[in-house]
Amino acid sequence: MRVEDFLLSPEELCQRRGPNDDIVLSSRVRLARNLDSAPFPGWAKRKAKIEIMERILPEIESLSLFDDGFIESMDALKSQEKQLLVERHLISREHAARGAGSAVVINKEESLCVMVNEEDHLRMQAIRPGFQITEAWEAINGLDDELEERLPYAFSGEFGYLTACPTNVGTAIRVSAMLHLPGLVLAEQVNQVVNSVNKLGLAVRGFYGEGTDTLGHVFQISNQMTLGESEPEIVQRLSKVLSQIIGNEQNAREKLLDDRPETVWNHIGRAYGTLSNAYSISSKETMNLLSLLRLGVELGYFEDLSIHKIDELFIVTQPNHLQQAADGKLASNARDLLRADILRERLASVGRPKPDKNSA
Amino acid sequence: MRVEDFLLSPEELCQRRGPNDDIVLSSRVRLARNLDSAPFPGWAKRKAKIEIMERILPEIESLSLFDDGFIESMDALKSQEKQLLVERHLISREHAARGAGSAVVINKEESLCVMVNEEDHLRMQAIRPGFQITEAWEAINGLDDELEERLPYAFSGEFGYLTACPTNVGTAIRVSAMLHLPGLVLAEQVNQVVNSVNKLGLAVRGFYGEGTDTLGHVFQISNQMTLGESEPEIVQRLSKVLSQIIGNEQNAREKLLDDRPETVWNHIGRAYGTLSNAYSISSKETMNLLSLLRLGVELGYFEDLSIHKIDELFIVTQPNHLQQAADGKLASNARDLLRADILRERLASVGRPKPDKNSA
Repeated sequence: MRVEDFLLSPEELCQRRGPNDDIVLSSRVRLARNLDSAPFPGWAKRKAKIEIMERILPEIESLSLFDDGFIESMDALKSQEKQLLVERHLISREHAARGAGSAVVINKEESLCVMVNEEDHLRMQAIRPGFQITEAWEAINGLDDELEERLPYAFSGEFGYLTACPTNVGTAIRVSAMLHLPGLVLAEQVNQVVNSVNKLGLAVRGFYGEGTDTLGHVFQISNQMTLGESEPEIVQRLSKVLSQIIGNEQNAREKLLDDRPETVWNHIGRAYGTLSNAYSISSKETMNLLSLLRLGVELGYFEDLSIHKIDELFIVTQPNHLQQAADGKLASNARDLLRADILRERLASVGRPKPDKNSA
Repeated sequence: MRVEDFLLSPEELCQRRGPNDDIVLSSRVRLARNLDSAPFPGWAKRKAKIEIMERILPEIESLSLFDDGFIESMDALKSQEKQLLVERHLISREHAARGAGSAVVINKEESLCVMVNEEDHLRMQAIRPGFQITEAWEAINGLDDELEERLPYAFSGEFGYLTACPTNVGTAIRVSAMLHLPGLVLAEQVNQVVNSVNKLGLAVRGFYGEGTDTLGHVFQISNQMTLGESEPEIVQRLSKVLSQIIGNEQNAREKLLDDRPETVWNHIGRAYGTLSNAYSISSKETMNLLSLLRLGVELGYFEDLSIHKIDELFIVTQPNHLQQAADGKLASNARDLLRADILRERLASVGRPKPDKNSA
């Protein structure tokens, strides 16, 4: 099956809502696991990788969790299909570069996925909309239990789960959330929050994970340490910090609207003006401006615009989703034109924002 | 009479059109003159300056050219009134700083004005809309002839008219035009044109004359030399160069629309989007964006917008015109809010630009 035919439409995907999803866009938990007595993917020869993959895939396929799911070897996917999966956060950029001996498995709901022979033999991930760290943890824990019954995991009594990279050893868990923090950005308090979060041993990154700039007032927060704490402790600690950041963002928005509402109106108005009138726009600018538009919707400034319509725009304006829509290879410049066409078209019926001046 | 009560409304002012005014916003000619056997204003004591002024003003007042005109000593004007005159290009910034002993005279149509005791005893200027350098020259020449009959000018057979600053000596003429060159700016050819013009001994400056940045794709071009050429020669040389620049700008616009119309649409669309949705905007950004909007009108992209409506916005969004509208002293931040309010309000009924995609 082609990736395009399997994936939920952006519209379907964005209908899903979760708690606090005005601030927490999504919650994710991933676990890294390796088979006992088998070389890590980075050290394994092609043949060994294929053997490992062929041992793992049938076990995953046998699980009812993946009924009607997507299962494919990475060498069977076109580059563009892989990039679509990256943009959906279903595989990593690194995994997209892999071929024979690596595979990807995704469940029907796109809420569970497994990368086979990425950096580790198994990288499994659960995603949930909104603030659902605990729910995501429970889902991935259930999958992990099922696989552990079927596959011999590399485990040390001293260190815990063994991983290719020592930074993951132990629980091998990464708990993360995607946060939408325009209030803290506009109030110029976001660096303060990022610093505090860093001091608590948590990492803050841009939209696509490590090595990317922070984009569009969207931040990813995750645990750094995988040793010395149990999985539930890590999940609980991140939940606490997230609750605090949600509070910070809510306060920042309220205070901004009290103290200098024009700043908020100005950013949202300009974002709307540019998105609905540009004829060329980059991916990065789009994300920044959509983020401000989302804030406008949350504040009730738009009559004809919903959060999920904006979340859909976040998805469809990404480079590889545009490629897919254009059914071919577009140069970056042509993508910027097409992106602007889509935005103008989808926003054509949306009236200008109407901030409630009286509430200020 | 208060300056506000005398000045034409921005609306009246912008109804006036002239040849090629899609590119040449206005044409101006000014002459500097001094009285024989009287100290230049910079050297004159207060008493001497007042004597000079009292000798000059009745002669100007006696001319029918200034019937129903405005005549006032600079110390009788409030700072805000002076700034309004600066924004209308009727007096210089330097003259606005002067008080007792200096004066300003403006004719009813705001097409002729005289500064008394600016840098020279007399600085007289004629302004015309569009490309009317020759007409402006004829107007100022007529005024000069009338005054020369009434006042003894400082004149040297060797040097010509004597002036306070040696750079003006000789003809003491400055011929200038305000040019709107968005095509050359967007095509990134404007520096080339500026360099060529400089090589011809002409100066290119920003909107408010010397020492200001170039703003909003609006450039002022003027002669540098006042010695060695007669006035008609200077006027003719500038006219030739202007005709060439008009051609360059027209070519740049056509070529842009042929080669990369999206660049033009993108700039005009974004300008419209920002101007009609911002809640805070600086004077400089406004001028830049209005300039692009003007190009959009010239290209027929707007159904409900006229050139003179935009030219009016250029005037009313200037800092001191805003002060006047607000009837009081506004901080810079408050002006940015008021400016955005005015722009949103005046553009509320203007529909999105509709570039003619077929013509591309």
